Amino acid sequence: MLPTFKRYMSSSAHQIPKHFKSLIYSTHEVEDCTKVLSVKNYTPKQDLSQSIVLKTLAFPINPSDINQLQGVYPSRPEKTYDYSTDEPAAIAGNEGVFEVVSLPSGSSKGDLKLGDRVIPLQANQGTWSNYRVFSSSSDLIKVNDLDLFSAATVSVNGCTGFQLVSDYIDWNSNGNEWIIQNAGTSSVSKIVTQVAKAKGIKTLSVIRDRDNFDEVAKVLEDKYGATKVISESQNNDKTFAKEVLSKILGENARVRLALNSVGGKSSASIARKLENNALMLTYGGMSKQPVTLPTSLHIFKGLTSKGYWVTEKNKKNPQSKIDTISDFIKMYNYGHIISPRDEIETLTWNTNTTTDEQLLELVKKGITGKGKKKMVVLEW
Amino acid sequence: MLPTFKRYMSSSAHQIPKHFKSLIYSTHEVEDCTKVLSVKNYTPKQDLSQSIVLKTLAFPINPSDINQLQGVYPSRPEKTYDYSTDEPAAIAGNEGVFEVVSLPSGSSKGDLKLGDRVIPLQANQGTWSNYRVFSSSSDLIKVNDLDLFSAATVSVNGCTGFQLVSDYIDWNSNGNEWIIQNAGTSSVSKIVTQVAKAKGIKTLSVIRDRDNFDEVAKVLEDKYGATKVISESQNNDKTFAKEVLSKILGENARVRLALNSVGGKSSASIARKLENNALMLTYGGMSKQPVTLPTSLHIFKGLTSKGYWVTEKNKKNPQSKIDTISDFIKMYNYGHIISPRDEIETLTWNTNTTTDEQLLELVKKGITGKGKKKMVVLEW
Repeated sequence: MLPTFKRYMSSSAHQIPKHFKSLIYSTHEVEDCTKVLSVKNYTPKQDLSQSIVLKTLAFPINPSDINQLQGVYPSRPEKTYDYSTDEPAAIAGNEGVFEVVSLPSGSSKGDLKLGDRVIPLQANQGTWSNYRVFSSSSDLIKVNDLDLFSAATVSVNGCTGFQLVSDYIDWNSNGNEWIIQNAGTSSVSKIVTQVAKAKGIKTLSVIRDRDNFDEVAKVLEDKYGATKVISESQNNDKTFAKEVLSKILGENARVRLALNSVGGKSSASIARKLENNALMLTYGGMSKQPVTLPTSLHIFKGLTSKGYWVTEKNKKNPQSKIDTISDFIKMYNYGHIISPRDEIETLTWNTNTTTDEQLLELVKKGITGKGKKKMVVLEW
Repeated sequence: MLPTFKRYMSSSAHQIPKHFKSLIYSTHEVEDCTKVLSVKNYTPKQDLSQSIVLKTLAFPINPSDINQLQGVYPSRPEKTYDYSTDEPAAIAGNEGVFEVVSLPSGSSKGDLKLGDRVIPLQANQGTWSNYRVFSSSSDLIKVNDLDLFSAATVSVNGCTGFQLVSDYIDWNSNGNEWIIQNAGTSSVSKIVTQVAKAKGIKTLSVIRDRDNFDEVAKVLEDKYGATKVISESQNNDKTFAKEVLSKILGENARVRLALNSVGGKSSASIARKLENNALMLTYGGMSKQPVTLPTSLHIFKGLTSKGYWVTEKNKKNPQSKIDTISDFIKMYNYGHIISPRDEIETLTWNTNTTTDEQLLELVKKGITGKGKKKMVVLEW
């Protein structure tokens, strides 16, 4: 059983909250960005009776959130005096899932109802908070159908994986058409394989060499719908490319799209496996190495290399995010996309008992902790 | 005075030739590709009275011609028995300028006249020859207005430089709009600067560091129309990029296009200087290093990286080559593009006195020789 939203619903729903608490920052620090965070209790300046008030259910701690604290992320919120600070400050966090606990009487509430679960339409709204206040329903997307973990991560990983598959290639689902991607164990890559499978597109996922390769590959293939998983050493092996790859791909295979979130040699090797005049999209650079492309791929094979940035794409075209979430939810309801909960380690913020000091420590642990993706889940 | 075509016109024009002589190859050899070349005398199989017969005036020895002999070039002519060889063979060379010496009576001659100077529309026709035979005027482009050196090189370097500037960006010639390119001393780069200048686009040309930097930069700026020349060390210098570059570019500058024929660090450094959502076209890889692109340029700056290949582009769309040559000739006639003769070392093939052995040595020298671009000029 997935945790239902009910479990997180407060008995005090439908009331205007009084105690606002947010994780805020005024400055940036590259080395140890947890230093710039503090917990701030404040009274919002808005007239809450005329606002959409949201109770936070969960927020993930994403790499981009951390990069924002470090001051190295190109997209950032405006810092304001809204939280009664001495210096202009912003609330950390860019995505999360919320429950509507109070609505205005006018048209600005749109079709929202009390108890609806929503996510912010845009990044930079600040999500590391117990409550948030919005003025218009058009800045929110309803996600009642999604479980907690899917809803809290759909804006970044969900949209990224979905749009990478859906928005660039005019696929023929009757053909033998493939995506090749590196970092095949990442959260986004798992969305990619599931969305691709649902659309009749095959995926070749490259993962790092490891002792339990077969076991990991089996999970990616059986649970997440990867068509075939290969290792980075196979990816980089010219003999493999010549002799084995064509058997994996089958007859009349077209490898039309490469998805790169690693860079360096891995990016060159997935690009080499593309058909002529194909596309590589880069959306991450885990290896810290630049994207590396043999000149001949550009000149003689017509390769196009572009970037994908979920924040900018959906800022430019908010409707595309609304449409993506709608399609994502349909696929989720059909069982084509499973919850990412197994990939996530939850950190519990009990809004009744967790002290400010404990909350700060909790979030710092989420920022610095290794292993699974971290998500703060609020208990009410 | 540029050498005129008159000088190369034969007294025997308007006659059907009897002695065909071509540099041909049947096999390939990477290490020393001159080994596969031989001089072949033959009688063409076509009915020459029903053909367009061309006398060769000059042909350059291009890197792509050499790569074809090596067997490492993705575009290659079909090998045939047309030249009375034991093994199927092809004539070397992909561009050159010819004079029409015999025409058929029918419509296949189009608007060609005896004495017209022409170039082949497509690559892979074989140009290292004293005569060539074509069946239709639609396979030829008239270039009567160009001097020998411009005409013999317009298919590769001329088209490349012209199309790189003209075919990808919708320029605003009233704006402060820039192209940045590396290998600023190359033949193509010199076409780029001249075409750009004629179109009201500014060029920032990067050249390798050298003792006589100022002298070389001055020639590129004064003679070839580069707006500003900088060194690779300046290109790679972050302080230069921050403090000096904006002064060079001026107010409201837009660096909209990067042209890369070097690769490696140089490609990363020119790409960094582009505005957001800009384009880098790679058309060569002199450093033998792959195209290297910081991940952030793709993701956060919206960089698109593509390739340019003159052969494929004009094969796909022959009309675009015809249009390019037409525009090139107009610009040449206005004096916006000068002859590349100063960049070229000529090797003379006297069709009356040069023996086959001497001819082969001449061409081998052209293939292996360092320094200036080599062109074989035929004397009749």
